[in-house]
Amino acid sequence: MRYLITFSYDGTNFNGYQKQPNLRTVQGEIEEALKRISNKKVDLQSSGRTDAGVHAISQTAHFDLDMIITLYKLKTALNGYTGEDIYIKNVKEIDDNFHARYMAKKKEYIYKINIGEYNPVERNYVYQYNKQLDILEIKKALKLFEGTHDFTSFSCKEDLKEDNIRTILKTKVNYNKNCNMITISFIGTGFLKYQVRNMIGTLIEVGEHKRNSIDIPKLLELCDRNCAGITAKPEGLYLKEVYYK
Amino acid sequence: MRYLITFSYDGTNFNGYQKQPNLRTVQGEIEEALKRISNKKVDLQSSGRTDAGVHAISQTAHFDLDMIITLYKLKTALNGYTGEDIYIKNVKEIDDNFHARYMAKKKEYIYKINIGEYNPVERNYVYQYNKQLDILEIKKALKLFEGTHDFTSFSCKEDLKEDNIRTILKTKVNYNKNCNMITISFIGTGFLKYQVRNMIGTLIEVGEHKRNSIDIPKLLELCDRNCAGITAKPEGLYLKEVYYK
Repeated sequence: MRYLITFSYDGTNFNGYQKQPNLRTVQGEIEEALKRISNKKVDLQSSGRTDAGVHAISQTAHFDLDMIITLYKLKTALNGYTGEDIYIKNVKEIDDNFHARYMAKKKEYIYKINIGEYNPVERNYVYQYNKQLDILEIKKALKLFEGTHDFTSFSCKEDLKEDNIRTILKTKVNYNKNCNMITISFIGTGFLKYQVRNMIGTLIEVGEHKRNSIDIPKLLELCDRNCAGITAKPEGLYLKEVYYK
Repeated sequence: MRYLITFSYDGTNFNGYQKQPNLRTVQGEIEEALKRISNKKVDLQSSGRTDAGVHAISQTAHFDLDMIITLYKLKTALNGYTGEDIYIKNVKEIDDNFHARYMAKKKEYIYKINIGEYNPVERNYVYQYNKQLDILEIKKALKLFEGTHDFTSFSCKEDLKEDNIRTILKTKVNYNKNCNMITISFIGTGFLKYQVRNMIGTLIEVGEHKRNSIDIPKLLELCDRNCAGITAKPEGLYLKEVYYK
């Protein structure tokens, strides 16, 4: 039987999503729980990875389990065997040909920037920027990322792909004056490693007036990682949602 | 020269505010920083203590320093020598007869309850309740705490005081539907140890319909800790503000 799980996690104390020997990872922790539940090695196939320090509000993954267990019991056991920083929100049975990664149609990421005073309780959950940013300019620049582009300038140098063309369907900036929080969201069909953090790093430079918003198309055309902004810190980033058909 | 500092902290990794031998505490960490700055032992006098796991948005404390240093430098050095979970927001010079505790006129505490789904990134910063609560009943009950009362029923058994009479000036409940968060605030002239957490524990039982809102005055009159609700968890509690004249 194939199952799809939806889960959230606090990335702070994980060495990223992907399993690595002798390191605490989200995948490793859930696979270990599945092993304890089923007494067998189980492979977890997620919608994709997140980097160390990045959080998830709604990540998805599928796995096959060769045993009889109720959905309620499976959810409870998974939550019981994983740490407090992972929460299995939902477990459901799915078709044997379903694939959490290949069938994902869209993904949404959000990035939080605190432009107010440093807040110790949020230090692992937002990018503490503590300076003014020109939100209107960020808005203009953000809009220019929408569409299908070669995102080589916003890729990870060490993660060479044959094809860096991706499509961003929708973007949004929200500024909450009460808590001085800027939230930037991206919905796309798929993202390169570091792509969101590299776009954010560039957008922050636009907000600082170190770059012009109208330069985004030029940066995309150049297909050169060196021309765009720095990689923004992981702690402000959240995988918000994975959309299937 | 006497200084007043205003600071925030994440109480998660501290054994409370008050200094204790061989344990990491907020007071201990700031006094250690002051010792490194001044090469002398410095006593920090705060507006009051907070329990282990309780956070502060704006705690205050004063200390005397026998050296010449600019306010900017002092603030920077304090932030440099304390952990990332403490933030010195402000440093100012004050009169030699000022006392952070004795001169505090009012204090405000807030308590956050998440009645939505468990959220791993908030596990140390809100009380994860995950069930519906009757907010109208909580509102009614909360109102009945206002005024001057003997709060023995809401005190800490192990912390015997001669006088458990305290005054609550103002209370408020806010419910944010978007994030399923209830925030309850109390402004008072002073609070007993565990008083806010004991009132919250009782209010949650009212919200669950295990108690009646109209029973609050009776509970206060009984002056018996055993009659009121449990002590709510520390992680939802924040010292929000200390008010001086």
